[in-house]
Amino acid sequence: MNDRLSSIIADIALEMAHISDRGTVANYIAPLAAVPDSRFGIAVIELDGTCHVAGDADTPFSIQSISKVFGLTLALGMVGDALWKRVGREPSGSAFNSIVQLEAEQGIPRNPFINAGAIVVSDILLGRHQPGETIGEILRFVRGLAGDESIMIDEEVAHAEQETGFRNMALAQYMRAFGNIHHSVERTLGVYFHQCALALSCRQLALAGRYLMCGGINPETGRTIVSRQRARRINAVMMTCGHYDGSGEFAYRVGLPGKSGVGGGILAVAPGIASIVVWSPGLNARGNSQLGTLALERLVQRTGWSVFDPAEML
Amino acid sequence: MNDRLSSIIADIALEMAHISDRGTVANYIAPLAAVPDSRFGIAVIELDGTCHVAGDADTPFSIQSISKVFGLTLALGMVGDALWKRVGREPSGSAFNSIVQLEAEQGIPRNPFINAGAIVVSDILLGRHQPGETIGEILRFVRGLAGDESIMIDEEVAHAEQETGFRNMALAQYMRAFGNIHHSVERTLGVYFHQCALALSCRQLALAGRYLMCGGINPETGRTIVSRQRARRINAVMMTCGHYDGSGEFAYRVGLPGKSGVGGGILAVAPGIASIVVWSPGLNARGNSQLGTLALERLVQRTGWSVFDPAEML
Amino acid sequence: MNDRLSSIIADIALEMAHISDRGTVANYIAPLAAVPDSRFGIAVIELDGTCHVAGDADTPFSIQSISKVFGLTLALGMVGDALWKRVGREPSGSAFNSIVQLEAEQGIPRNPFINAGAIVVSDILLGRHQPGETIGEILRFVRGLAGDESIMIDEEVAHAEQETGFRNMALAQYMRAFGNIHHSVERTLGVYFHQCALALSCRQLALAGRYLMCGGINPETGRTIVSRQRARRINAVMMTCGHYDGSGEFAYRVGLPGKSGVGGGILAVAPGIASIVVWSPGLNARGNSQLGTLALERLVQRTGWSVFDPAEML
Amino acid sequence: MNDRLSSIIADIALEMAHISDRGTVANYIAPLAAVPDSRFGIAVIELDGTCHVAGDADTPFSIQSISKVFGLTLALGMVGDALWKRVGREPSGSAFNSIVQLEAEQGIPRNPFINAGAIVVSDILLGRHQPGETIGEILRFVRGLAGDESIMIDEEVAHAEQETGFRNMALAQYMRAFGNIHHSVERTLGVYFHQCALALSCRQLALAGRYLMCGGINPETGRTIVSRQRARRINAVMMTCGHYDGSGEFAYRVGLPGKSGVGGGILAVAPGIASIVVWSPGLNARGNSQLGTLALERLVQRTGWSVFDPAEML
Repeated sequence: MNDRLSSIIADIALEMAHISDRGTVANYIAPLAAVPDSRFGIAVIELDGTCHVAGDADTPFSIQSISKVFGLTLALGMVGDALWKRVGREPSGSAFNSIVQLEAEQGIPRNPFINAGAIVVSDILLGRHQPGETIGEILRFVRGLAGDESIMIDEEVAHAEQETGFRNMALAQYMRAFGNIHHSVERTLGVYFHQCALALSCRQLALAGRYLMCGGINPETGRTIVSRQRARRINAVMMTCGHYDGSGEFAYRVGLPGKSGVGGGILAVAPGIASIVVWSPGLNARGNSQLGTLALERLVQRTGWSVFDPAEML
Repeated sequence: MNDRLSSIIADIALEMAHISDRGTVANYIAPLAAVPDSRFGIAVIELDGTCHVAGDADTPFSIQSISKVFGLTLALGMVGDALWKRVGREPSGSAFNSIVQLEAEQGIPRNPFINAGAIVVSDILLGRHQPGETIGEILRFVRGLAGDESIMIDEEVAHAEQETGFRNMALAQYMRAFGNIHHSVERTLGVYFHQCALALSCRQLALAGRYLMCGGINPETGRTIVSRQRARRINAVMMTCGHYDGSGEFAYRVGLPGKSGVGGGILAVAPGIASIVVWSPGLNARGNSQLGTLALERLVQRTGWSVFDPAEML
Repeated sequence: MNDRLSSIIADIALEMAHISDRGTVANYIAPLAAVPDSRFGIAVIELDGTCHVAGDADTPFSIQSISKVFGLTLALGMVGDALWKRVGREPSGSAFNSIVQLEAEQGIPRNPFINAGAIVVSDILLGRHQPGETIGEILRFVRGLAGDESIMIDEEVAHAEQETGFRNMALAQYMRAFGNIHHSVERTLGVYFHQCALALSCRQLALAGRYLMCGGINPETGRTIVSRQRARRINAVMMTCGHYDGSGEFAYRVGLPGKSGVGGGILAVAPGIASIVVWSPGLNARGNSQLGTLALERLVQRTGWSVFDPAEML
Repeated sequence: MNDRLSSIIADIALEMAHISDRGTVANYIAPLAAVPDSRFGIAVIELDGTCHVAGDADTPFSIQSISKVFGLTLALGMVGDALWKRVGREPSGSAFNSIVQLEAEQGIPRNPFINAGAIVVSDILLGRHQPGETIGEILRFVRGLAGDESIMIDEEVAHAEQETGFRNMALAQYMRAFGNIHHSVERTLGVYFHQCALALSCRQLALAGRYLMCGGINPETGRTIVSRQRARRINAVMMTCGHYDGSGEFAYRVGLPGKSGVGGGILAVAPGIASIVVWSPGLNARGNSQLGTLALERLVQRTGWSVFDPAEML
């Protein structure tokens, strides 16, 4: 299968290179706007550790909201299910940065993958620490998952977010008005913006995501990152909430738990089979990578991977 | 495994019998209100056809919104993906009978499993036929899936719905105002109300749902009901939209595609493994069976069934 | 003053004739769409009965929502302040036919001048009568107010509304779902559509509106139509709710209680001074007559009429 | 008339003293929560300068949102109608501190009297000045209107607001995200919170409001504060938007332009007749003074004052 998989991935990268309608690169901060929309990368790591890559799979990109998966994992490890008193786990039915739902639901964000929810998770991560310590802990965690000490936070991106993130500031202030942000907005957002500024390549990110295909265990070290039940449940939240108001569409077309970021990356998980990352910076109308989604659709069409399929009948 | 599974199911039925907080039985029409909340049934059909049951598994109940799965399947067979021009496939983020979203999104319901979406599906099923013919076709389809000619529509339920269903009439009228209902509201709702009034036992319903665990094939007859890709996609819509505004919660706690009905039933699918039906008429705050959900949670805890889990590691 | 007023009105009609940006004529039913946007009429009746007219002041037009003022007056006479248990009196903050607010506020429309509120008023008017009797009563009431037995309901308009009014049907059904419509939707809407189809000229409508400038008394007959307090309060509701989501704008620019209709008419009241009607079928973005509003703005600029002004300082 | 008016006011104060259901005193900051709900004051200043008072009419209270009238007046003087590009003038149809509308309408608040709108006005007032200078200017303006140099800002209230005003910070940040706040949120809110902390007695506030009954002229000094048209229009905005989501109710029951504050004060204007202030700290469900509204209702019942009434028929 390995050779066939490498060949499938190469085919997909080739097909993507020839598509002209590539979506729109995020332009709300300069460092993101500067990424050419011609970029495309894909990395697939199988359960046995084999890694298949194609395209710009070793170019670091801003993982942005994909980092929310790691933030959630870390916060669940710290406070356990008490986290769910401060964040829901339902799809939002609205845009990633909507404030409307917060008013109706008294400052409790619908899920940890919309901005408001991830900001609450950052507030939880901050705990009794200084922002610098918390950011350091997140970085160490992601490096440990990927087994790669070279992973960095892009400070230019973090600073650009801090200068322009008025809407996130409003979300945080608003939740603080309801008592659901416990630290100063500046400190909590400091953690949030740095977490979102993590820069990883497709290969590094697919490595970091392996525990989600392995029932919570880092297959390289054998270390338990989260319990098996919790790994399942993180996958479940990715499935129902991982693509903002395009989560239903992603489940329909791709059929795997996944989390997208505004930098154009998508981390998808085929439990027991593969950890997959695609990257193409142009976004569709819902804010998810246009070619990234298409590439994943091609991949599952050719491999038959889908959590909704009777695999043993393949 | 079979003996163990029977024993698990018997344990669950016993546990459920002793729970006093059973939720609230739907009381908007008399025939539903009359069902005692002491009822509980469960049926699990494995891929090989083995059927395990416990409790009131052979008592017919009103499947209500679970019928929307069969309506969608039939309509996709008639008009194919053109259906998706008239209905979306995103979670709604609001209650099952909300009209708000229809105003913002110009008469296109968010998905085929909220009432508005299912009414559009009924309108599609009506096609050029008379309501009576369409209702007959739906009944024949479900009987064929279950291999059971004794399945009936409960006319008392259908009539009660027609007399009191003002809110559904409003939804239909409203979509008609946007051109998304093509027949008279009376005719379209006639189909809708009769479809919802289908009465099946847990066993019959689990039989009818087998094609969703088998990649679209009826395992008894070998007949293809829908293509394998379409079966996958119906499962995907069930996962993200099958429990109204509690879909995220169900994915998190149970981890299987499922569809609930206000009669207290839930159909859940473990692809390649089992077709599962639970029934307990008391509902939780989101309108889904309270003990039904709990019973499924127990079942997946003890079997490890979850589409989000690396099954081969069991 | 009379001569000066006639001259002001003639000036305004002349100015309006030369304006090319005339808004958009309502086109949801054929009889309204057929009205040329070149039409403009104005009628001003002073407290002493003097009537000044210019333009097409004697051409009957479809008064549409302006009829809601007469419907409210009649219903208050029938059931008194009990009416306010079924309809609020707050501005809506949304479009004239929005259904969203009804969901949040449990089927109680925000005020009697949005469609939903006027439909409830029609339902109240229906009482124990047949629709035909109620329609007859409304017609007699308006004829009596205007002192003109030639006023008619335009049956072509009424029928066109009934054939296409799906959105109003949805509003009615929806309120019926909350128990706030007591008759069948067809009967209640029959009354509503006929009331809206009243056809009056500017002169006739200004005559019909005299009781609102005269503290509730018909100055011609001396008959009390409503109590002085109630006349004041109807004016108050016109001020805050009479122009849908453009009511604040109208109060700001014109400063008189007023009610607009989709046929392009506006009835405005200068208490103790004048009953005013303008008509120009082209509508602005909020659904109010574009030139009608401008003509009223000119009129108050030149006369100083405003309820917000210290009149004795003139 | 003067003696009769004094007697009416004394009657009203007496009646209010005996009412036990006094609403709920605002408790979101300690200095407001500390005001006993037994307080009631009323001051009426006639066009000729005669002042009638009763109850606690000379006790300063926190005027809170009533200050928005003076902020708006000052800002219109500075930037003229350009102000209306950044703030609307429609009733909001929602709570005073709702953020929902801002999302739908792209950061433009509905009117200058809801919090978001008044914050934009503060941002305009800030112009190129330091917050301290702007606050000084507002204070001088209000002192000048009232002809009373002893009027102060309650620094304890201003500081308490700054410490707890997360929701207003969220509103400001959110509008800044849309480019509708031009200064730092801290500076703009510094102005806003100090303006709201103005402390005036009923008598002082009625003096300050005289220009609104006098067509824009301070009757004591003869100085034009705003043009006559602008005075009219400020009254119009008070009428449609001055009582948050209870503006329709106030227009209906009282029939005068008015502005309420969370401190329990209401400024009402009978153009050409009187400037009226009532104060009772207990609020009703819409956040407006419960007894203050009732007292005004009694006053207009006995005087016949209403902008919706044909005054010359009195």
